[in-house]
Amino acid sequence: MVFPEYLHFSDNPAKTLQDLIGAFAPDQFAVLVDELTAQHCLPLLQTDAPVIRIKSGEEEKTIATCEYIWSEMTRLGFSRKSMLINLGGGVIGDMGGFAAATYKRGIRFINFPTTLLSMVDASIGGKLGIDFHGLKNHIGVFQEPDAVVVCSAFLQTLPKRQIRSGFAEVLKHGLIKNKAYWYRVKIIDLENQIWDDIIAESIKFKHEVVSADPQESGLRKILNFGHTLGHAIESHFLETNEPLLHGEAIAIGMVLEAHLAWQKRLLSIDECEEIVAVMRSYYGLPPLPDVRELEMHLLQDKKNSEGRLKFALLNTIGNCHYDVVVDLEEIRRAVVYYHAIR
Amino acid sequence: MVFPEYLHFSDNPAKTLQDLIGAFAPDQFAVLVDELTAQHCLPLLQTDAPVIRIKSGEEEKTIATCEYIWSEMTRLGFSRKSMLINLGGGVIGDMGGFAAATYKRGIRFINFPTTLLSMVDASIGGKLGIDFHGLKNHIGVFQEPDAVVVCSAFLQTLPKRQIRSGFAEVLKHGLIKNKAYWYRVKIIDLENQIWDDIIAESIKFKHEVVSADPQESGLRKILNFGHTLGHAIESHFLETNEPLLHGEAIAIGMVLEAHLAWQKRLLSIDECEEIVAVMRSYYGLPPLPDVRELEMHLLQDKKNSEGRLKFALLNTIGNCHYDVVVDLEEIRRAVVYYHAIR
Repeated sequence: MVFPEYLHFSDNPAKTLQDLIGAFAPDQFAVLVDELTAQHCLPLLQTDAPVIRIKSGEEEKTIATCEYIWSEMTRLGFSRKSMLINLGGGVIGDMGGFAAATYKRGIRFINFPTTLLSMVDASIGGKLGIDFHGLKNHIGVFQEPDAVVVCSAFLQTLPKRQIRSGFAEVLKHGLIKNKAYWYRVKIIDLENQIWDDIIAESIKFKHEVVSADPQESGLRKILNFGHTLGHAIESHFLETNEPLLHGEAIAIGMVLEAHLAWQKRLLSIDECEEIVAVMRSYYGLPPLPDVRELEMHLLQDKKNSEGRLKFALLNTIGNCHYDVVVDLEEIRRAVVYYHAIR
Repeated sequence: MVFPEYLHFSDNPAKTLQDLIGAFAPDQFAVLVDELTAQHCLPLLQTDAPVIRIKSGEEEKTIATCEYIWSEMTRLGFSRKSMLINLGGGVIGDMGGFAAATYKRGIRFINFPTTLLSMVDASIGGKLGIDFHGLKNHIGVFQEPDAVVVCSAFLQTLPKRQIRSGFAEVLKHGLIKNKAYWYRVKIIDLENQIWDDIIAESIKFKHEVVSADPQESGLRKILNFGHTLGHAIESHFLETNEPLLHGEAIAIGMVLEAHLAWQKRLLSIDECEEIVAVMRSYYGLPPLPDVRELEMHLLQDKKNSEGRLKFALLNTIGNCHYDVVVDLEEIRRAVVYYHAIR
């Protein structure tokens, strides 16, 4: 199957929602939104269903917000046959999915991703969860949504910075698995990309990887390219007044991990520099946190065990190894390189 | 398969734990205990693994305690390859299981049930969870433990009241599926029961039902006999200074639901009275909460949808129907009957 069974492309989200409600026949349903999607996206659904509204932002992805969602579903009298509609980006999809998957031991939920990032990434693969004590997605479960409705019209509601952030995952897909895709997308300005094609291609690719290894015991780990250091950087900036968006942190992660791959004699210096140039052109190269703080976050990462740091590292553009053990000295060298090229 | 694959009977829990650690080879593990199992049961495991200790009692089965368990696992540096050992009754098994199943999207966990109730009931069937806003098991997931070690030696650490509470589930197993079992166990004093046989028989039975219907879409609902009203009663007493034990509440539930079955012309009056007599002999017939409060709890029950109350009701001793719709008037009549026979 090229696309996941639960995936629906739609240019009429209101109609698709109606069809899905008809098909699943929940005894009742509600729409989970944040402040932004309440304003910009909810009108496109044309529904008078009850709304559960939370604040926007990754810093809201906590057990406290999750408790609020559970309380609201309880107050609405949600039964095991009720359904939650998650309308928003990765935070809404991950946290709403987790709240639904654990409410009365699991009710149905549907995701309407509204950001490029959540369309090409978070909506596929069934990773649900919340942050805990500053650790990203520390608490969660694996479970596929009952439906994911991808509608590129929502992208028109997004600021350019959000589009650029999501584009980092698109670039990653090219880097780890498809050299032609990388060369095709990296030369086009964000304004001129054909998003419907890109979304379909990236979803197809992610689905292929995830179906081969749903529980992330092998191949799926290549999706973590850029994310091991990227998450550590994102966690750091979450604690500041100017958090980076996910894709912005991952772009830095890809630069650092390209250098790790070069140190390991996996990646050529030419390809490493090509990656740096592309990331610089889209994202600039923001300042890094202190290396000791990065290390602290790294040691808490889900991907690591027995105190060893394991990375997904490029062998060449379009091919990625995983479970490559990296030591702290190598990470320090990558950070020194990053400071030198800024 | 007569017994679940993950089930181990053991008369040497320390040895069995060692064997399982050898087999699963976690990078580290910890034992979750409450105050009581720390004192009475932990010594039997002969382990110097780190201990995560919580207070005893159903009122501790909350998201706050769960957060504490997540924090402790984080503090210990638990990775995805670590393992949690749950040593205790239903609360420890359900909540420790839920904490493990959601930590980093799921790590391994093993249950050592220490009460009769958890040996014959909670340990089989993969229902994990916590209470929320006074609603029993309102938040949770379905997931089988990686191993359940049943060791009847732990029963010697239990007060008689706990044994009697667990025995209510044994009686229920006879009532809903096995008339011969009911007649065999109900005539023997608790002091003289052969627990190893009873535990094996009840687990075998529960496993049979649960494997036929893991997600509780049909047959599994017969296990809810006595539990729809029983849970409402238990929820009420949880909010008082003198909570009932689970089995004590379920025994009242079985009396009330036997009367509902009689009202529905499913159960004969002779069998209804036989059930009342047995429950009275083991549990007495404690006072009931106000009927309106029962109704409020009933309407929040996971088993009900679209505002209709659905019960598992006996057709005869040894046979149970499910999804029988009951109205509030019938419940009020059962409560009147209960008051009359006390």
